[in-house]
Amino acid sequence: MTKKTIIIGISGATASGKSLLANTLVSELGSKRVAVISEDSYYKDRPDLTVEERRQINYDHPDAFEHDLLCEHLHLLQQGLPIQVPIYDHSKDARSDNVYEVKRTAIVVLEGILLLSDPKVRELLDIKIFMDTPLDICLIRRLQRDIIQRGRSLESVLQQYERTVRPMYFQFVEPSKRHADIIVPRGGENRIAIEMIKAKMRDVLNNAQQEEA
Amino acid sequence: MTKKTIIIGISGATASGKSLLANTLVSELGSKRVAVISEDSYYKDRPDLTVEERRQINYDHPDAFEHDLLCEHLHLLQQGLPIQVPIYDHSKDARSDNVYEVKRTAIVVLEGILLLSDPKVRELLDIKIFMDTPLDICLIRRLQRDIIQRGRSLESVLQQYERTVRPMYFQFVEPSKRHADIIVPRGGENRIAIEMIKAKMRDVLNNAQQEEA
Repeated sequence: MTKKTIIIGISGATASGKSLLANTLVSELGSKRVAVISEDSYYKDRPDLTVEERRQINYDHPDAFEHDLLCEHLHLLQQGLPIQVPIYDHSKDARSDNVYEVKRTAIVVLEGILLLSDPKVRELLDIKIFMDTPLDICLIRRLQRDIIQRGRSLESVLQQYERTVRPMYFQFVEPSKRHADIIVPRGGENRIAIEMIKAKMRDVLNNAQQEEA
Repeated sequence: MTKKTIIIGISGATASGKSLLANTLVSELGSKRVAVISEDSYYKDRPDLTVEERRQINYDHPDAFEHDLLCEHLHLLQQGLPIQVPIYDHSKDARSDNVYEVKRTAIVVLEGILLLSDPKVRELLDIKIFMDTPLDICLIRRLQRDIIQRGRSLESVLQQYERTVRPMYFQFVEPSKRHADIIVPRGGENRIAIEMIKAKMRDVLNNAQQEEA
């Protein structure tokens, strides 16, 4: 009997350290045993809209995501089957023609802002983690990423932050915290929390190996 | 070389499930390797006051605790030395003449409402956990414990709750949450959180055994 893949969801505000935590877990436990999937890969494709209309979409609202496809993929992974994850092209605000394959691994780490706000996604998660990083720290990280790394203007980042990121956080993300199994304060560099999550994941990996043997 | 004892602090509101979590950890990992100490054992002894005056003490305020003695004991435990924990007599609001001994164990779990609000205690904790149980759930548990189990009157429990428990929670306990390494929502029966903390403790115990061997 093949052991089912364990799916760990990491949620929290944008730039709260979700991917940092996910990537730390993978780099310390090995990419052969742990795969990472981002909820952002499942932004809806809207070829019916113009580029300008697509730019106006509220990407922090649940309607921006194709959670049905995400759930379908999670079901396949739980059955040990590979999935083709869409690759979203942020420069065009559209799904690209490319996909990448995620094969069966013992653990899948899924990270995204609205994982815990959707009951359909939530019930597919074996462990639910919420990154409870203070919002000003998230904003600093966001400014560094979007302005310094991605070359956007301060004005456009702040406008988006005030128009969608912040209100959607309070409407959807923050209330979903109560569904978490464990809440991680101080962001993705909280070593003790990382060690604790890693210890649990090592347990899962050891059990998976024993079942294989 | 003897490995130093790991001290895990569990804090949170009164009746938030701190002792339930602590006792679950001990019963599942074994009392030979894990000891539990309660901050309540370190209530200050006040023989200078009358019984009536002692009854008026605010037992939810930091001044009610002898944290200096607690810290001294934690230092001793970290050095592998046994300690004599005072036994508090709640019927007399005074320290009894008896103590109980806690011998060297790989892990000590310390539980109490004000562990994370005191920097002296905080810096002695290797892992800091905060039980973030909703206050109404804590109140239900408190009413069940104090009225049904301990035979107190509803009026006296609610009066104490409104006069000291609740205001001290907001003044001292809740703000100390930000010092936690990990926050546990939904109380001491949150199985996933318990499993995660246990996995980490098993790691510590395995390391301790390897050092001994």
